[in-house]
Amino acid sequence: MDCSVTPIRNGEMSLIHTTDFFYPLVDDPYIMGKIACANVLSDLYAMGVVDCHNMLMLLGVSSKMTEKERDIITPLLIKGFKDAAAEADVKVTGGQTVFNPWTLIGGVASSICFPKEFILPNGAVAGDVLVLTKPIGTQLAVNCYQWLDKPERWSRINSLVSDDDIHKAYLCAMSNMVRLNRNGARLMHKYNAHAATDVTGFGLLGHATNLAQNQKNKVSFVIDTLPIIAKMACIAKVCSSFKLLQGYSPETSGGLLICMPRAEAQEYCKDIERRDGNQAWIIGTVKEGSGTAQIIEDPEIIEVPHKENAKL
Amino acid sequence: MDCSVTPIRNGEMSLIHTTDFFYPLVDDPYIMGKIACANVLSDLYAMGVVDCHNMLMLLGVSSKMTEKERDIITPLLIKGFKDAAAEADVKVTGGQTVFNPWTLIGGVASSICFPKEFILPNGAVAGDVLVLTKPIGTQLAVNCYQWLDKPERWSRINSLVSDDDIHKAYLCAMSNMVRLNRNGARLMHKYNAHAATDVTGFGLLGHATNLAQNQKNKVSFVIDTLPIIAKMACIAKVCSSFKLLQGYSPETSGGLLICMPRAEAQEYCKDIERRDGNQAWIIGTVKEGSGTAQIIEDPEIIEVPHKENAKL
Repeated sequence: MDCSVTPIRNGEMSLIHTTDFFYPLVDDPYIMGKIACANVLSDLYAMGVVDCHNMLMLLGVSSKMTEKERDIITPLLIKGFKDAAAEADVKVTGGQTVFNPWTLIGGVASSICFPKEFILPNGAVAGDVLVLTKPIGTQLAVNCYQWLDKPERWSRINSLVSDDDIHKAYLCAMSNMVRLNRNGARLMHKYNAHAATDVTGFGLLGHATNLAQNQKNKVSFVIDTLPIIAKMACIAKVCSSFKLLQGYSPETSGGLLICMPRAEAQEYCKDIERRDGNQAWIIGTVKEGSGTAQIIEDPEIIEVPHKENAKL
Repeated sequence: MDCSVTPIRNGEMSLIHTTDFFYPLVDDPYIMGKIACANVLSDLYAMGVVDCHNMLMLLGVSSKMTEKERDIITPLLIKGFKDAAAEADVKVTGGQTVFNPWTLIGGVASSICFPKEFILPNGAVAGDVLVLTKPIGTQLAVNCYQWLDKPERWSRINSLVSDDDIHKAYLCAMSNMVRLNRNGARLMHKYNAHAATDVTGFGLLGHATNLAQNQKNKVSFVIDTLPIIAKMACIAKVCSSFKLLQGYSPETSGGLLICMPRAEAQEYCKDIERRDGNQAWIIGTVKEGSGTAQIIEDPEIIEVPHKENAKL
């Protein structure tokens, strides 16, 4: 499960909480702070928890930076984290800061919920479809952006894409990573979601497999469609070590992967696009099975472009 | 405050939680795991919270260790952390693990409390005394132990103390750092504690000052007695950069510093010695004042010896 769920007191309520911390993967500390916060909260949202009641922040200030670098970067990381928390209607009330060779940013998100306020990720039934709320490919996009400054790496892909393609992919990745999965969580209740997870370090198929294994019913997941940040699919073919098309490329602050009835999934996708201005996609189906997940051979690739007006 | 306190739902209850993580300071990973857990929990105990309802663990596995080192050390860190949690009647239900240049260990401790189950650290009144439940000097003891292998450092103190003194001081520091402040918290309720904190990174006087500033009444704290791990006071005189006698030497998993009425403080000290087998001390008084804390000139030094039967 994405969160720890502890029944409290007489079991009427549960403490649902999660902790996560990250190393920076984008070059803008303010945006990195937002991404970290969105990613911590995402574990709550994956369980349909809409209201986080408190956040703590974890911060590792790099001992390898100069004092000047620290004085500029640290407040921006904190501001990004707090701004994203404010967007989620939650205050950051404490935490801890240490020196560390590598910069660290993360947090603890907690909610106290009545049973109807969260959805245990174990109720998928054969006939459900799989919905994904953000495109995959964030890691490859972030890496490609770094390769712009590394001629040797860049020369391996510059026949496939332009500088501009990479800049747009990077912006697309960032705008998706900062986006909260909160509306996604809210709508899980409205449209009868049966189970969900969020897509992060194990990649789409890694998390799909975890989720499939966790179901009460004997089901398997079949993914037939991969929404991918534009241009990343063609790069993934030559940079096969990323395993993006195999579903194993790590994502940061990825989308929700949700099992729900097909008719409601279609409404869910329309509704979330109205609210967030971003598409969600039906990417596969739930069948009777033995707790596995797979991507079909030659899945449909949806190229997801950067939206010029996307919020960062 | 040592914890974040968030009123939840209609304010009938509060979510009280805290997060902390640390770099190892002792050479036994199992004991380090226990110390980390005791230190995380201590923030709850300082608020009189007796029952922690859930813990998450934060772990940074050193990227500079060999695979073999990691395979030995990591499970011991985890076992120590979990064993200390079990001693506190709490399960570790999740957390996060990353690679990091430096080993990290810490956690998140959460409790959901009714108002009578915690004590806000702001009720000290003039006439109270200050109680401390563990000796200070952990950092100096740990450093002296490391100096046994550094002839240049060792030569500066070996006229004052023996190898055996240092080994005992190190054992005394470890046994105090692994000890839970849980009985200390329990007895805060029984003996009418008005305010408390735990002594960690800012040192005794640093935390005393924070606590004094946080009081509703206009009070100041005067510390007249320093219980110190045996032999550390004389070393502190030559190693003045530690500022142990000035009250600013950082402690790890230190004791509770509690404001309470004198008569009850005497009973508190007797009671905790019966339960924990360890002494607590009245180390000062609360007077009318302006939110300051000080150590008197030439305070009484109590040499606290290692107990041969102390638990590790």
